[in-house]
Amino acid sequence: MSLLRVGFQGVKGAFGEEALYNYFGEEVHTIAVKNFEDICTSLESGTIEYGVLPIENSSTGAISDVYDLINKYECHIVGETHVKVNHNLMGIKGCKMEDIEEVYSHPQAFEQSKNYLNNYKWKLVPYYNTAKSAEYIMKQGNKKIAAIGSKKAAQLYNLDILASNINSNNTNTTRFIILGKKLMVNEDCNKISVVLSTEHKAGALYHVLKHFAENNINMLKIESRPRGNTPWEYNFYIDFEGNINNDIIRKALEKMSKDCHHFKILGNYKQFN
Amino acid sequence: MSLLRVGFQGVKGAFGEEALYNYFGEEVHTIAVKNFEDICTSLESGTIEYGVLPIENSSTGAISDVYDLINKYECHIVGETHVKVNHNLMGIKGCKMEDIEEVYSHPQAFEQSKNYLNNYKWKLVPYYNTAKSAEYIMKQGNKKIAAIGSKKAAQLYNLDILASNINSNNTNTTRFIILGKKLMVNEDCNKISVVLSTEHKAGALYHVLKHFAENNINMLKIESRPRGNTPWEYNFYIDFEGNINNDIIRKALEKMSKDCHHFKILGNYKQFN
Repeated sequence: MSLLRVGFQGVKGAFGEEALYNYFGEEVHTIAVKNFEDICTSLESGTIEYGVLPIENSSTGAISDVYDLINKYECHIVGETHVKVNHNLMGIKGCKMEDIEEVYSHPQAFEQSKNYLNNYKWKLVPYYNTAKSAEYIMKQGNKKIAAIGSKKAAQLYNLDILASNINSNNTNTTRFIILGKKLMVNEDCNKISVVLSTEHKAGALYHVLKHFAENNINMLKIESRPRGNTPWEYNFYIDFEGNINNDIIRKALEKMSKDCHHFKILGNYKQFN
Repeated sequence: MSLLRVGFQGVKGAFGEEALYNYFGEEVHTIAVKNFEDICTSLESGTIEYGVLPIENSSTGAISDVYDLINKYECHIVGETHVKVNHNLMGIKGCKMEDIEEVYSHPQAFEQSKNYLNNYKWKLVPYYNTAKSAEYIMKQGNKKIAAIGSKKAAQLYNLDILASNINSNNTNTTRFIILGKKLMVNEDCNKISVVLSTEHKAGALYHVLKHFAENNINMLKIESRPRGNTPWEYNFYIDFEGNINNDIIRKALEKMSKDCHHFKILGNYKQFN
């Protein structure tokens, strides 16, 4: 049996791996890569058929690197899923709170656990990701060093949880997108993502946005990113409801693309809920 | 003579200090604070009359923490200025390229110098800011440790520049906002910043945006940030051209605020150019 090859960023126990299993189930060949960009190059080279990347966290906002990557590479969003992110403080077996001097984790985990961490004077060391931080602590075997990550990472690397759910916001959720090489559209797809840039002149942006209003298309999200070498020009990433096979949507997209300097349909997929 | 007390984040030689002098000139009493948030609390307590904060970099985009702060605190944008950001690799006197093992700087400086840094295998250590990194290197007096920062920081901390202008983008610019306690509007003000959130229902966002289109108001920028404890609800930060004493603008703002859940005029000021 030939299993689907799907990539995620990080090591075993990463939230990306959980997102991957959420979406594809357990019968899948998972491939862990080091950086976000490796997902895109692995898709291009065919090493993986799909890849999973975090695009947005409900507390800390857009993951800008991923927005930039999906515009740069020839890949498409074919789905999305959500992972509830709870952070836990963990140390090697026998480690106590008063032993801790340094804490390793991804900067986003520090940010999401800021209120808790403000109560302590630990040195916070930014590290690749939460699962790799847990792995590092296990390998060091030093009671002075703790990590912040998921319960699964604690289990996997045989660490003790010293404090559970230390994230400030208990609805903390990360949205992951599923990337493939091609657009995949069926009748269940109800969310469209595009990236566009307009000429740098008065009114250019609202000329594009008016196509949403005029056609009663429900815009869900708009995100700006710098466009490249010219300061203060932007790529706008817009999510809205619809299916690209619908006549109204198709015509609106045609008109919009004519008003834009750069216009790319990133994907049409089923909204997670 | 009583000088204006103006705050910036960082230590002497920080880009924020340069922005401050750009805007206020040299005849000013500068106050360095540790964190972005300290600027807002110092304004509240009256320790400073104005504060300078970076809000956006032309290569790496919005500085989200600052967007969140200007919504949270009772402060207003009274001006803006731009600082051209060139990064330089620096070490203590006599340090050579082949001595370097670790490089200290702000994560944004690593990001902006990514192409250059990819040629080397140095350990990159995230630090508070570029000027503090230069100061740290000077204090350590170790040839194995280098920093990335401005030419001014190298001068100030008596460091040798080993490589100049290592940022990938040679138009790399940071936009700083000037914060005060109150709105300050005169006839020169031609840029307005607002923050708003809409009800979480179909079409709410474009109902607000249509007031720009209908009144021929030129939207310059839109930025989204998570709104708080409810996932996937956003605050939208919108910059547009105009003066709030203009009739059309005033009426559009009134209508917009009625369509919004939360609506705040952040400032009306003179656009930098």
